[in-house]
Amino acid sequence: MARPKLRIVPLGGLGEIGKNMTVFELGNDAIIIDTGIMFPANDMHGVDYIIPDFNYLINRTDLKIHAILYTHGHEDHIGAAAHVVEALPNIPIYATPLTAGFLERKLKEGRVSNLTTINIFRAGDKIDLGPFKVESFHMCHSIPDCVGFAIHTSYGVIVHSGDYKFDNTPIDGKKPDYARLAQFAKSGVLLLMADSTNADFPGWTPSEAVIDGAFDKVFREANGRIMVATFASLISRVQQVANAAKRHGRKIAIAGHSMAENIKVARQLGILDLPDDLLIDVNRVSSIQPHKLVIMVTGSQGEPTSVLSRMAAGKYRALEVEKGDTIVLSSHPIPGNEEMVYRTINRLFQKGANVVYDPIAQVHVSGHARQEEMRLLINLVRPKYLLPIHGELRHLHEHSKIAIQSGIPKENIFVVENGQVIEIDKYGIHLAERVPGEYVFVDGSSVGDVGRVVMRDREVLSKDGFLLVAININAKTRELMGEPEVISRGFIYLRDSDDLLIQVKDVIQETLTSSNGSNGRLREKVQENVARILYNETKRRPMVFSVINER
Amino acid sequence: MARPKLRIVPLGGLGEIGKNMTVFELGNDAIIIDTGIMFPANDMHGVDYIIPDFNYLINRTDLKIHAILYTHGHEDHIGAAAHVVEALPNIPIYATPLTAGFLERKLKEGRVSNLTTINIFRAGDKIDLGPFKVESFHMCHSIPDCVGFAIHTSYGVIVHSGDYKFDNTPIDGKKPDYARLAQFAKSGVLLLMADSTNADFPGWTPSEAVIDGAFDKVFREANGRIMVATFASLISRVQQVANAAKRHGRKIAIAGHSMAENIKVARQLGILDLPDDLLIDVNRVSSIQPHKLVIMVTGSQGEPTSVLSRMAAGKYRALEVEKGDTIVLSSHPIPGNEEMVYRTINRLFQKGANVVYDPIAQVHVSGHARQEEMRLLINLVRPKYLLPIHGELRHLHEHSKIAIQSGIPKENIFVVENGQVIEIDKYGIHLAERVPGEYVFVDGSSVGDVGRVVMRDREVLSKDGFLLVAININAKTRELMGEPEVISRGFIYLRDSDDLLIQVKDVIQETLTSSNGSNGRLREKVQENVARILYNETKRRPMVFSVINER
Repeated sequence: MARPKLRIVPLGGLGEIGKNMTVFELGNDAIIIDTGIMFPANDMHGVDYIIPDFNYLINRTDLKIHAILYTHGHEDHIGAAAHVVEALPNIPIYATPLTAGFLERKLKEGRVSNLTTINIFRAGDKIDLGPFKVESFHMCHSIPDCVGFAIHTSYGVIVHSGDYKFDNTPIDGKKPDYARLAQFAKSGVLLLMADSTNADFPGWTPSEAVIDGAFDKVFREANGRIMVATFASLISRVQQVANAAKRHGRKIAIAGHSMAENIKVARQLGILDLPDDLLIDVNRVSSIQPHKLVIMVTGSQGEPTSVLSRMAAGKYRALEVEKGDTIVLSSHPIPGNEEMVYRTINRLFQKGANVVYDPIAQVHVSGHARQEEMRLLINLVRPKYLLPIHGELRHLHEHSKIAIQSGIPKENIFVVENGQVIEIDKYGIHLAERVPGEYVFVDGSSVGDVGRVVMRDREVLSKDGFLLVAININAKTRELMGEPEVISRGFIYLRDSDDLLIQVKDVIQETLTSSNGSNGRLREKVQENVARILYNETKRRPMVFSVINER
Repeated sequence: MARPKLRIVPLGGLGEIGKNMTVFELGNDAIIIDTGIMFPANDMHGVDYIIPDFNYLINRTDLKIHAILYTHGHEDHIGAAAHVVEALPNIPIYATPLTAGFLERKLKEGRVSNLTTINIFRAGDKIDLGPFKVESFHMCHSIPDCVGFAIHTSYGVIVHSGDYKFDNTPIDGKKPDYARLAQFAKSGVLLLMADSTNADFPGWTPSEAVIDGAFDKVFREANGRIMVATFASLISRVQQVANAAKRHGRKIAIAGHSMAENIKVARQLGILDLPDDLLIDVNRVSSIQPHKLVIMVTGSQGEPTSVLSRMAAGKYRALEVEKGDTIVLSSHPIPGNEEMVYRTINRLFQKGANVVYDPIAQVHVSGHARQEEMRLLINLVRPKYLLPIHGELRHLHEHSKIAIQSGIPKENIFVVENGQVIEIDKYGIHLAERVPGEYVFVDGSSVGDVGRVVMRDREVLSKDGFLLVAININAKTRELMGEPEVISRGFIYLRDSDDLLIQVKDVIQETLTSSNGSNGRLREKVQENVARILYNETKRRPMVFSVINER
């Protein structure tokens, strides 16, 4: 029997490639790495978040899926876990302790804890999953307990970097496992799948350690309260704030549900060193002198419902911004969030706070490798083939240029989009078919019932609104009975537009008089003619509807 | 008689402060500097652009406005000219040649050319405007013919920097006028109003000249066509591309109406050195070998209607992206545009182009001063007071910190918002009243009839859409006659939601049965109850309307 082909299937939409969910198949056996969410773009109106379309897996009933393996605990890697577990039950989960802690909470919230089991491994552990021999190795990133995977197959080793940077002075002291990476090279790496997020930045990403210096300066200079906003899952940053609080004699409070929950998990696991006597309940902060206090808050991305945004808007009763507060944004805006982040900063200044953010001070560094680290990884692992992942198409292309400079032949590098199947057989690697690799929008309580059509309607409504006319007509004479009723929102301020309303009424009467068609046709005619008048008078194109009652 | 107070009134909304339009008053005499537009944020749905609210000036019928003076020809400084001229006719305009050329076109398009006169001055010219003696001085920025103003008053000199950077190797060879700035210091500068845009960046902004090197590398390495996208008004960048084209034996074509028009003006004025034999009509580019061609295009901000975005989306027939094209984005995304810009870049890569953009190569530099240049300006001019302008609140606060480091006392620095009047009298400078300093939205053909209410409705519609039920009821029995008609857009895909529609019908019937109030009250009841059902079933809150016909 011929050896089955090895297939790699990255799932998800046009965002980052190979980021949220990737399938590895060997004949009828499969494993999954990560099940994350994407965040909606500004023009994806009303969407809460996006999950990868994994219908491909649901349809592949022939596949035995041995495991879902997780690289680390960030939302874009674990956020869709409950959705996947619900649709594909009874697949064991494998994760490191912190990631497992976050996953447990997520499955509980999604009420699917009973549909799977979570198996905990530690960096360095080897897991046998059918024909896949998976070996985990520690990688540094902006969250503890982060790993990459080496998948040992009969075709050779596939090294999957996960999200990483080569941080030689990480907060938790756990250095990158250079030795293990180099050993993979020795036994021969067929394919490297590596993080491309920062491929357009030259040099090295600074170590998390540089932030300590920036924090010390902020803590030294602040006379009042300090608040630090960062991602709810950035546990190592919480550790740094806790360390700074200790050094400078301040107590630390936590505001924001998701952050408090994550911190609880990390403390229970002993991953976060945050002694009880350093902590103070956020409801009791008024009992502490301002210069003895630091508060961790959510909202570093300007999310409207977060603590920081509500504080900036004066809508967070529990905590109000005061003159003399120093507020640190220990984060970078994710592309698309810049406007909201800067608006929040401006509002905080307006309320008298001093706001510190990068580039004013180095209070944040990226968790992803830059160009020199990408070169180092390639040179350590010495792969035959490269599949750049974790980045938009533009990042993958830059990663590809870097790899070519490092000596990987162009034809051995595969820049693909999500849904593109990559096949490995005894002849090498090549591209196979494309499977649906799309977005699925999650909005309100439901998954997927907001598609392209609804999204397009929302776009039109958001630009020009709508106008509806309800009319009664005499079935015999076809004359307008009474005044048309006009309902409109998001169009223009109609109370100031009497002339326009008279024109709308006139055009309806004209349409009735000249029309002799059926009622259905009449309706269209009314809508067309009203829309035309509205456009002529306002140069806007609201959606136009009509309700016609014959009497 | 006491000397009249000098008043400075920055107009505009919560965007950049003192950027788009500033009024200077001395008793009943006044002058205006700049009349620009702002660009809408992502949540200002359907807004084309924003102009400052200048009702304050319209109401001040006692004011004699002697002039509108322009610092330079960018949209955020001249874009609202036609609106202002229409509302405040017969005020002479003063501008440098290139700015005047752009203004002429703008007034013509707005059909208000006959309502004013444009007077041309050159950097260094002095203009007497009633009690204001205005002296212009050359400043470097990313457009030629840029000036700042020194306003000589009996209180002392006010120096207004305009947009600037200290570029020692500018493209047009016109260096910053350090000598004149230093002379102002000698005669005593009361107040410096200075550009704060880049106040959060340390160091110096690189000279425009560094781009030449990056362009040379791109031109040397590209085997196919080169396209360069930049701002339509970035004339000096066009000059650099033209120079590179000449050096590397390529012809240059221009795609995009606004850019072509601006280039025409600049060539006519002799500001742009672009000989006829270097130019080729964009409709004839197919007659030229790819490696002999460079095309300037609009769309560096990902604007959906621009040449580059339409090319990226495959919707620009005249010019299609081909494999082997090199596309340079010679620009930075303006905050809020990042998503659209990166989406455009990804699509261009998808079509096989190589895309070069900052930070991959230094193909763009900012036109605004950074911290060291701000310090230099302060040290050259040695003002008693500082009014940081041209930036969001966060930038003004950073500028203020820089000024304090440079020795200006904190109490002599005024960080204000638009609408805040600053008064100068013999005792010094202090804050006076606030005048309405808001946004006015321009949308479609009309100005200002889209206000906060309409915008909020658009926001709600964009998130959850709307649903309208039209019902007929028996006036006597209050029973539902026939089926309710449901019209909905932007909510969910209703064709798949039969259950929900049945529930909506049921709740309407229940409401009718239990209600005995007036029809107006009935309507509210129906809407409330339908909204509740929709929320319970979908966790969404569409706008809900009803039309009730009694028979």
